[in-house]
Amino acid sequence: MEKVDLLIIGGSAGGIVTGQTARRQYKDASIAVIRKEKEGQVLVPCGLPYIFGTVGSPEKNIMPDKLLSGSNIDLIIDEVTSIDKQAKTVATASGKSIGYDRLVLATGADPIIIPIPGRDLENVFCAIKDVDYLNGLLRAVAAIKDVIIIGGGFIGLEFGDEFRKRGLNVTIVEMLPHCLELVFDEGFCTLAESQLTERGVSIKTGAKVEAILGEKKVTGVRLAGGEELKADLVFMCIGVRPNTQLAQDAGLEIGETKAVWVDEYGRTSNRDIFAVGDCAEKRSFFSKRPSALKLASIAAQEGRIVGANLLELRRRNEGVVGAFATIIGDSGVGMAGLTETQAKAAGFDVVTSDVKTPDKHPGSMPGAKEFGVKLVFEKATHELLGGQVCGGLTVGEVANVLAALIQSRMTASEVATFQYGTHPFFTPSPLVYPIVNAAELALAKL
Amino acid sequence: MEKVDLLIIGGSAGGIVTGQTARRQYKDASIAVIRKEKEGQVLVPCGLPYIFGTVGSPEKNIMPDKLLSGSNIDLIIDEVTSIDKQAKTVATASGKSIGYDRLVLATGADPIIIPIPGRDLENVFCAIKDVDYLNGLLRAVAAIKDVIIIGGGFIGLEFGDEFRKRGLNVTIVEMLPHCLELVFDEGFCTLAESQLTERGVSIKTGAKVEAILGEKKVTGVRLAGGEELKADLVFMCIGVRPNTQLAQDAGLEIGETKAVWVDEYGRTSNRDIFAVGDCAEKRSFFSKRPSALKLASIAAQEGRIVGANLLELRRRNEGVVGAFATIIGDSGVGMAGLTETQAKAAGFDVVTSDVKTPDKHPGSMPGAKEFGVKLVFEKATHELLGGQVCGGLTVGEVANVLAALIQSRMTASEVATFQYGTHPFFTPSPLVYPIVNAAELALAKL
Repeated sequence: MEKVDLLIIGGSAGGIVTGQTARRQYKDASIAVIRKEKEGQVLVPCGLPYIFGTVGSPEKNIMPDKLLSGSNIDLIIDEVTSIDKQAKTVATASGKSIGYDRLVLATGADPIIIPIPGRDLENVFCAIKDVDYLNGLLRAVAAIKDVIIIGGGFIGLEFGDEFRKRGLNVTIVEMLPHCLELVFDEGFCTLAESQLTERGVSIKTGAKVEAILGEKKVTGVRLAGGEELKADLVFMCIGVRPNTQLAQDAGLEIGETKAVWVDEYGRTSNRDIFAVGDCAEKRSFFSKRPSALKLASIAAQEGRIVGANLLELRRRNEGVVGAFATIIGDSGVGMAGLTETQAKAAGFDVVTSDVKTPDKHPGSMPGAKEFGVKLVFEKATHELLGGQVCGGLTVGEVANVLAALIQSRMTASEVATFQYGTHPFFTPSPLVYPIVNAAELALAKL
Repeated sequence: MEKVDLLIIGGSAGGIVTGQTARRQYKDASIAVIRKEKEGQVLVPCGLPYIFGTVGSPEKNIMPDKLLSGSNIDLIIDEVTSIDKQAKTVATASGKSIGYDRLVLATGADPIIIPIPGRDLENVFCAIKDVDYLNGLLRAVAAIKDVIIIGGGFIGLEFGDEFRKRGLNVTIVEMLPHCLELVFDEGFCTLAESQLTERGVSIKTGAKVEAILGEKKVTGVRLAGGEELKADLVFMCIGVRPNTQLAQDAGLEIGETKAVWVDEYGRTSNRDIFAVGDCAEKRSFFSKRPSALKLASIAAQEGRIVGANLLELRRRNEGVVGAFATIIGDSGVGMAGLTETQAKAAGFDVVTSDVKTPDKHPGSMPGAKEFGVKLVFEKATHELLGGQVCGGLTVGEVANVLAALIQSRMTASEVATFQYGTHPFFTPSPLVYPIVNAAELALAKL
């Protein structure tokens, strides 16, 4: 029987970084990643939408296998079919049994297919991380005009914007009153919606798709209420479901968010089995309650924690902060931590503040865009709980500035005197650096 | 006699933000700024170079006076000629005497003119923050071909790049072995130099200008060693000198860096007189020793501290971290905290690490640039002392991410598990987010 010290099931962000970190921490251990995808077929998860307008093909959106070989990690192309906790072995589809000292589940999550009539029609797609499947979608979008996207979250907006870049007629259908409603407060949602609308994307919010229409191929959708919309293709992206079948079959505990329960070191209910990434349950940095956040950056960060803990507990997970950003055209929105809505829902009494200023200085600099920041502070402790930002191409790193301030638990007064740098081309003016300015405004209300 | 509660001498970044902060903190106080510049004539300090290639005129690079009026701060256009500490009054050039309860010196710094022959010739300029003077420089550069810039710091490189955008032949002459040597480690200096050279700017390092040549107008410069370089215009930018005449005349203590000595609350040796910005001495966040750093962002941050302290001590200055960035063409370099050289010079035993990765992901994204990070950690405490970064337009905010991690005194292990967000258009890949990755590499050496 084959045996490896550290066996990782799954070869995307969480699995790769777990392996790389384990290699840095445990020089002499044998480490293997076992995954279904063939050589050179693991897709960059966040790059999926950009295949369709910007990058051009799935093959240009691949994570190289040298990420593994470069860290002396063996790659086994196979599928794990079961785990024997007692024997500390896994069985595979090809009939092998592989022993492990420590096992890591990095099995990810799969798109949720809404159980509505027509979901099996030709030209119904979702964000499946598979090269052949995405090439199929690429061929399909090359032959059509009208796309309906079901779900107005990040993925829906990103696919919508990219499909639009190809000249398709795009309609996003979202059940909630606003797109991005689960991740931004209303002002930022309406801003993103208006940017999409300006780019020619249609948005129908507060609308539920009841059926996908067509005989063999998609011809449209029917909304609750009866309205029918014409479509040649439907793209479904209402969320993902953690892949926990292996864990469940092995009797591992499943958490409140339907992901594999883990402790703060990333251990499942079995001490020798860890879990990272979309398949693993997360806890909020703020409330310590289970969190449904799923991001490649979180998977990578969990990989850095779990990879260090496999043979000895060396790093603790303080819970997910959440930091992300997206682009619409050449405008960006980003956030870190809790929105006002989320903070209140978690039971925090909060104070918020908003500022707007040009994102370059002086405002007469060519290409200057309006830059907006909203901060959320906890009333009791004055600590920064979250920030939202809109502007241009810097919003991703501005979200990371916010993430750093949040993780160090800075108070409004500390944020107000935070030392930042500025430059005419890169940032707003030093006089009104918006994160600091918003903290000053919040202080006046605290 | 006129009397104001809080009187601020100087109307640039430090003075304005001190006033605005004081207004937020002390609603009922009377506040005035007294300055020499007429209405609508205060220049955005960091915008000076960009007048010449990007923005087009000094008039487009003005800080609006509504920054004062909007905070109910009176503007007095006059020049303070002396301070009477006992009487708590200032005398002005127009013959007025103005009483104060608290006085703030925000008198800034002026460019150093090198005392070499030819310094008074026509077409010798430096970075003087005066609209008429800069319009004179604008007219002068419109009529010439060959410019020599003396001093290869930030300002010299920025003016050089902007002059080059106008099609001028630009040569930068720097005494030290490299441009930017006082603010970056060597690899980043040589990168910036090669970017400038690619854009057609000539650089002569290790070279000292001994004389400016010409009868009435500049015709060239002579270097130590005898070499002569042709020039129609010389731009001198070797540094600035704090404006401390008023303070010295009033008997206030002057610090080691020739700036006005202040305590950690921004008070000078007289309890009723404060100082902020380029005229005020700074202490390093790291070593607590006097620091010669001078930046508009630091002036603004000191304004936020001092403005709060005027009537009651509310905020303490922990010392300057230093965070800044600049652009060459469409490439950026930035930094926060100490370079390796600076850290060693300050007595720290350090470990460093370098990483390079595309600044978007996948690397096939259009417009992806190489993004490099170097981190410096203290061996004893594992704390992050500094970071340098090169890449595209996001480096300014990446420097701010580093500044936040430094200010919260994160250790290498904490930086390695820092929660960041990523996006294909905005950041490197989540798998290799370079700040985190560099921390992991440093940890292996700690």
